[in-house]
Amino acid sequence: MAQGRHRVVIVGGGFGGLAAAKALKSADVDITLIDRSNHHLFQPLLYQVATAALSPSEIAWPIRHVLRRQDNVRVLMAEVVGVDAEQSAVLLQDGSRQPYDSLVLATGAQHAYFGHDEWEAFAPGLKTVDDATAIRRQLLLALEAAERETEPERRKALLTFAIIGGGPTGVEMAGAIIELGRASTRGQFHTIAPGQLRVVLIEGGDRLLGNFRKELSDYTLKSLRDLGVEVELGQMVSGIDADGVSFGDKRLETHTVIWAAGVAASPVARWLGIEGDKAGRVRVEPDLSVAGHPNIFVIGDVASITQDNGKPVPGVAPAAKQQGRHVAQVIRRRLAGETAPLPFRYHHDGDLATIGKSAAVIDFGWITLKGRLAWWIWGIAHIYFLVETRTRIFITLSWLWIYLTGQRGARLITHGRPPERHMPERKGQDQRSATTTVTGLDSARSRSQI
Amino acid sequence: MAQGRHRVVIVGGGFGGLAAAKALKSADVDITLIDRSNHHLFQPLLYQVATAALSPSEIAWPIRHVLRRQDNVRVLMAEVVGVDAEQSAVLLQDGSRQPYDSLVLATGAQHAYFGHDEWEAFAPGLKTVDDATAIRRQLLLALEAAERETEPERRKALLTFAIIGGGPTGVEMAGAIIELGRASTRGQFHTIAPGQLRVVLIEGGDRLLGNFRKELSDYTLKSLRDLGVEVELGQMVSGIDADGVSFGDKRLETHTVIWAAGVAASPVARWLGIEGDKAGRVRVEPDLSVAGHPNIFVIGDVASITQDNGKPVPGVAPAAKQQGRHVAQVIRRRLAGETAPLPFRYHHDGDLATIGKSAAVIDFGWITLKGRLAWWIWGIAHIYFLVETRTRIFITLSWLWIYLTGQRGARLITHGRPPERHMPERKGQDQRSATTTVTGLDSARSRSQI
Repeated sequence: MAQGRHRVVIVGGGFGGLAAAKALKSADVDITLIDRSNHHLFQPLLYQVATAALSPSEIAWPIRHVLRRQDNVRVLMAEVVGVDAEQSAVLLQDGSRQPYDSLVLATGAQHAYFGHDEWEAFAPGLKTVDDATAIRRQLLLALEAAERETEPERRKALLTFAIIGGGPTGVEMAGAIIELGRASTRGQFHTIAPGQLRVVLIEGGDRLLGNFRKELSDYTLKSLRDLGVEVELGQMVSGIDADGVSFGDKRLETHTVIWAAGVAASPVARWLGIEGDKAGRVRVEPDLSVAGHPNIFVIGDVASITQDNGKPVPGVAPAAKQQGRHVAQVIRRRLAGETAPLPFRYHHDGDLATIGKSAAVIDFGWITLKGRLAWWIWGIAHIYFLVETRTRIFITLSWLWIYLTGQRGARLITHGRPPERHMPERKGQDQRSATTTVTGLDSARSRSQI
Repeated sequence: MAQGRHRVVIVGGGFGGLAAAKALKSADVDITLIDRSNHHLFQPLLYQVATAALSPSEIAWPIRHVLRRQDNVRVLMAEVVGVDAEQSAVLLQDGSRQPYDSLVLATGAQHAYFGHDEWEAFAPGLKTVDDATAIRRQLLLALEAAERETEPERRKALLTFAIIGGGPTGVEMAGAIIELGRASTRGQFHTIAPGQLRVVLIEGGDRLLGNFRKELSDYTLKSLRDLGVEVELGQMVSGIDADGVSFGDKRLETHTVIWAAGVAASPVARWLGIEGDKAGRVRVEPDLSVAGHPNIFVIGDVASITQDNGKPVPGVAPAAKQQGRHVAQVIRRRLAGETAPLPFRYHHDGDLATIGKSAAVIDFGWITLKGRLAWWIWGIAHIYFLVETRTRIFITLSWLWIYLTGQRGARLITHGRPPERHMPERKGQDQRSATTTVTGLDSARSRSQI
């Protein structure tokens, strides 16, 4: 890369950051893309890793690989801890500084527990590959523990799965968990009858998929109930602990609670020394720059911006991609000497959510679809949007296999021990025999954290 | 399952245990197969997970799934901590007991460090899926850290990879790591030239693949050197620490050392209160039972038995499978009232090892093969021996993809943080800024250990 070229630093290799980098491919700039992970993650399918339908490598690709044909990008795996806006440099955890001429902050969101951070230990959310394999492990271990449990109440709690939040992630998880449980138990567990599985979806609002049209929400509710999911609407969660979840005046005994209810932006506002909105997002100017810092742009889940119709731009992948491309265009224009402001306009393509085998809902605005046709469109659209040809082939085959055989290919419990060490009821017994483990899993685990 | 039937307990769902269970499919017995993991692992291809060619789910299947069509088996995910041979019961970690009429112990081997357990933290071995993803992470993180490192000596150490042990695993890892490094760096890292990667294979004996014919060992040595691997023969390792490995009078600076040198049996001898051989294995009777305990059988890597030619039965998958089937036959015969002893006879099919793309060695006894033809036979044989049709398809495609594009599909760093937190040189800086992490990876990791 030539010296003295305009330096663009992009923080975050998600949909927004990657789109910005790609849209600058032929620009006369030096791009540095920084991410604390080595891979770009196709988050819309992450719930399928959590429910053992897909492998992590089918929905995640090394960022270096994705950008390998783009000469003006350097990829840095590093953790950003701040921004020095005065000196125009990004601060990395190792103490080094990454100077920029233009900065794009696209660090996304993380789970938020509405002030109840203590819930996180009992109700993991789904944002990273590690989150997904941890949830997969928890789901599969609950079935293993239930197979051995003879005490009826404990057994019932082990076979109960709660999901908090009735947006697309919650709906997709609920459908997938009940299908995973039924397909796995059929002929493979001797003491668990498929009908004993309970999946409870708890939503604070008065309908599922609040962003979709009412008619599709109603269809989703009916489809999930037909699948066997218990849906609790208008219920605010008041407590989550190791033994269950409390909502309204009810209490559900379970050891598996999945959080799909809320997210908060990563700490970009703090880096910039400004105040974020109540979800921690940065209110941006019409061209996605930060007030007072025309060369700093904030995009994706971490940006707060209103559409012409007064509604906020939603925190979805297409919005992040459009914003990434927009920022690239603003940078190109400035380099070309054009100073007229270029406001961002969000184009909403539609909302999609899948419910279970052969059931999905799509709201394109001008048309709505539901049922089997929507399900096929959902699948084809997701394969189309995948980044790499290799994974298009593999995911198509994985889905085809599940469709034909009902068997999910990735039901692995990794980073774990047998169930007695994970289920709270048996804790005392664990500790008693903790020194007599058969082989070196402990050391394998500690190695994985060196 | 009917009450009062002969109860067979099998501990371990590896090649031996699974073969025993399957060979008892039509027998009038109730089988309980206990494993502390939920999956059967196809260990011969584990090094391909460690080097990012395959995903864990391509070489591991839930044991329940493998045995789903066999009605007389119950699978239990649990940790065995001992055997009460007097009362004929297996002791589980949760304090419960599993009574048996016949017991098959097939718990396999783990890494052994020749009395230097302190090396394990710096030189992980390769036995489980978690081992493989931990090694994959370490390899990929070293490349990430090297990309950023500017100090020449540190950089050199980060780009040096040492493998201890020149058996099949060591040879296969050496070839795969150099191919992974070269394919990954090409166009994807800006500061690393492929020629800067060093892979050093250290073997105590005077040749690689000591079990193979001399001619194949020589070919393997030449092939690895042609690939660019440095091979050190006749070198005993005297020390391994966070900064490198010492052997003979040499010292190699590296942060990535992989242990492929020695294994020891799991603690079956201790469970039985008898003395094992120096590798911890149990010397078994000709019919694979334990002296004084005719209804307890020990098979696979944990059994020590001599062939008619005076050589020990090797610790390989075919031996474990044959022993599993043999024990099943002994149990069937006893149930039929036949008391004549049935000695085990090992049939050696041959030895195979792959070196790199288009290079492998095969020793069938009556014929030896090397080079491209051996490589194709190696690949086809491994696909043939896989357990499930689904993975046959997926592995064939994964290999075809790598063969055609050179790109490995599973280069994910999971359960981790950016490189500065893993490489010893930067430790001080890490701690300084450890409280300012961008998002919730810490909590994701702690969740995965609940």
